[in-house]
Amino acid sequence: MKDEKMHYKKVEWPKAKIDNLHPADAADKLEELSLEEQQAFIRSQPLEVSAESITEMEKHERVALMSTLPPAFAADLLEEMAPDDATDILSELPKDIRDKILKYIEKEDAVRIKHLLKFDPDSAGGVMNTEILVLDQNLSVEQAIKLIRENAEEIEIPYYAYIVDEFRHLKGVLSLRDLFLAPGNKTLKSLLKDQHLIFVTYDQDKEEVAKLLSRYDLLAIPVVDHEMRLLGIVTADDVIDIIQEEASEDMQTMVGAGSDETLYTPWFYSVKKRLPWLIINVFNSAISAYVVHLFEGSITQMAILAVLMPIVANQAGNTGQQSLAVMIRQLALETFDPKRFWKAVAREAKIALVNGILIALMVYTGIYLWTQNRELGLVMALALLLDMVLGAVAGASIPLILRALGRDPAQASSIFLTTLTDSGGFFTFLGLASLFLLN
Amino acid sequence: MKDEKMHYKKVEWPKAKIDNLHPADAADKLEELSLEEQQAFIRSQPLEVSAESITEMEKHERVALMSTLPPAFAADLLEEMAPDDATDILSELPKDIRDKILKYIEKEDAVRIKHLLKFDPDSAGGVMNTEILVLDQNLSVEQAIKLIRENAEEIEIPYYAYIVDEFRHLKGVLSLRDLFLAPGNKTLKSLLKDQHLIFVTYDQDKEEVAKLLSRYDLLAIPVVDHEMRLLGIVTADDVIDIIQEEASEDMQTMVGAGSDETLYTPWFYSVKKRLPWLIINVFNSAISAYVVHLFEGSITQMAILAVLMPIVANQAGNTGQQSLAVMIRQLALETFDPKRFWKAVAREAKIALVNGILIALMVYTGIYLWTQNRELGLVMALALLLDMVLGAVAGASIPLILRALGRDPAQASSIFLTTLTDSGGFFTFLGLASLFLLN
Repeated sequence: MKDEKMHYKKVEWPKAKIDNLHPADAADKLEELSLEEQQAFIRSQPLEVSAESITEMEKHERVALMSTLPPAFAADLLEEMAPDDATDILSELPKDIRDKILKYIEKEDAVRIKHLLKFDPDSAGGVMNTEILVLDQNLSVEQAIKLIRENAEEIEIPYYAYIVDEFRHLKGVLSLRDLFLAPGNKTLKSLLKDQHLIFVTYDQDKEEVAKLLSRYDLLAIPVVDHEMRLLGIVTADDVIDIIQEEASEDMQTMVGAGSDETLYTPWFYSVKKRLPWLIINVFNSAISAYVVHLFEGSITQMAILAVLMPIVANQAGNTGQQSLAVMIRQLALETFDPKRFWKAVAREAKIALVNGILIALMVYTGIYLWTQNRELGLVMALALLLDMVLGAVAGASIPLILRALGRDPAQASSIFLTTLTDSGGFFTFLGLASLFLLN
Repeated sequence: MKDEKMHYKKVEWPKAKIDNLHPADAADKLEELSLEEQQAFIRSQPLEVSAESITEMEKHERVALMSTLPPAFAADLLEEMAPDDATDILSELPKDIRDKILKYIEKEDAVRIKHLLKFDPDSAGGVMNTEILVLDQNLSVEQAIKLIRENAEEIEIPYYAYIVDEFRHLKGVLSLRDLFLAPGNKTLKSLLKDQHLIFVTYDQDKEEVAKLLSRYDLLAIPVVDHEMRLLGIVTADDVIDIIQEEASEDMQTMVGAGSDETLYTPWFYSVKKRLPWLIINVFNSAISAYVVHLFEGSITQMAILAVLMPIVANQAGNTGQQSLAVMIRQLALETFDPKRFWKAVAREAKIALVNGILIALMVYTGIYLWTQNRELGLVMALALLLDMVLGAVAGASIPLILRALGRDPAQASSIFLTTLTDSGGFFTFLGLASLFLLN
């Protein structure tokens, strides 16, 4: 059976073809194989091909594969990668395996990787690329072009050159176009005047880096230390990955799923990530249930209250989620400005008030037509309006409050919101009903 | 008062400084001004500065400004912009204003813009950039470099050169690095062999373009027609915008907010976008309420059912939203493959089953401790488990079903999901309770 499967794989995906695949496609093919097949394949390919394919694999698959390869071979693979990719992969591995592999990495590369491992993976330093084109500001344009031609093979993306002084302080950025347009005898320094230098420090959050690069439509943004010494760059393709990760993280953690779950995540990993939030959600719904419990007597007298109360809660929940969604996306897109964001909470309240009045009128009419009970309609309409505004204010504020507390603004925000709109809705509706409809 | 305000603005933001601002920052400043102030400013600046700043403005602000400028002046501004930006802006304007402005645009530019206006704005053609470096495959490397130097000033981003035959059929892509490394006497054609050409056709969805560029870590991807004639390119910074737009769209439309709402959207626009979904949500919750209505008798006999039923609905709702979130993000990230995605629905069901069993056990214990009513605990646990699995299957399937129906997979998905988990939860819980707890 095993042999048959191997044979099938070999027929479907002949070795001769693999070398020509783009690493992203090769990684996809790899992920369809069993762990043993992956190991066999990785060992059978040229080191460069294997290294590139591993770089493109899903995190969970990659960790499993790298952890089970002999450390010396894993080290060879990492040496083939760009230092930032090698660092990312190492940082995913359990510490003991990481240390074993590091011992086999050539000294110069190991020093570079250990340096990069020190940066917070969520910071500019943690995502930067260190293979860049650095030119001394005192070079002439002619000398610079000569240098670029000589080094083009080693440098991954030479469309920007980073101009520094003798202490590697960043002085400016020139595109290849700038260089080719300038007279050959001018110094690089003279081309830099009036330049608007956009950069980040290594400790800035990677989301901020993404916002800046995207705001200024750059292809790469330089990373410096606090003395303005150039450390590396973050490129547009890294930023695309950061933005996609953050978007998944926001949407998934909002409802208590794992930030890095995909179709390929092992199911028990997903269970582990989601269960704690589902448990918190039980306790949260117990709060709303307790509110209903307080009014059990009213419900016994008038069971229609139990029929209508989910409408109130649901409507306010939806209203709140609209505000929540807009706010979380704006936090992902815009540089945070407390004044502007708190003003936006007022905007959400206003929208909910207008929508609330319209929905309340509609529901009032519906209930009146159905039950001929004007008071019930009024109580329901008022509860809806109040709870919808509460939902909007809560939905818009929760991410800001979480942020102010130093937490991820999205984390479980939808769960907290639902607790509030459920409890709030049940309380206002059943409370108003008990006051005005029952004796 | 008006004068004072103008004066204040002038002091705070002296004209001398504006020319030096990055267009993205100038646009921010502009947005803080009133419409009249914006008009005055735009007319006072060099045309190029004004054009770039307008390009960077928020859509709603930009539409208001462009619609109120004299058409001849608006045309001058558009002529200063890259054709794709000019087209985007024109396509946002009401048709009558657009036509008026087009009359004033210089013939050659107008032809180009009218051509671009024909592409669907959500397709590769609608987002592509047409100012590119195109080289004939029969040129020598030396001739090509000379051409690039001569034309570098006109072309926005010359880090890739697109190589075509005499009919403008795309033959390959060379980076400037490739060119500078090659011997001067070789033809471009000879450098292209073995090249993996990655491209899109003009009618491909812009999301697909973003997925491809991001998958292959490209800085730009060429756009061709069905005869492989080169039409333009989509660059990484365009893709960043596409990805951000799509992420906002998914998160916001999922709960029935407008796809393009921001902090700056006029509130009545948001009301208009959200109200229809809130109304649909009322009808949806009426369905769940109807289910409860069917069991009014049971609730009158046993009011604790009304207390517990929101816990069932809420827990299943949360479970379903976790599946929904993961599925929507995966649709945004991965190329669609029906087999893989439907397999993922089974994965979600499995996760919900395991989580459901654990939560059901916990809730059973809680209810037993609180009420000493074993049967009530069992009914609640069973209803929870069933509704949580229903939630996961629904949450994971709804985007796939919407997609199969040719709709946006995210649109109102959370609203549909809640209807299902609410109705399903109320029905199973109240139904089981009526069968087993009441006579």
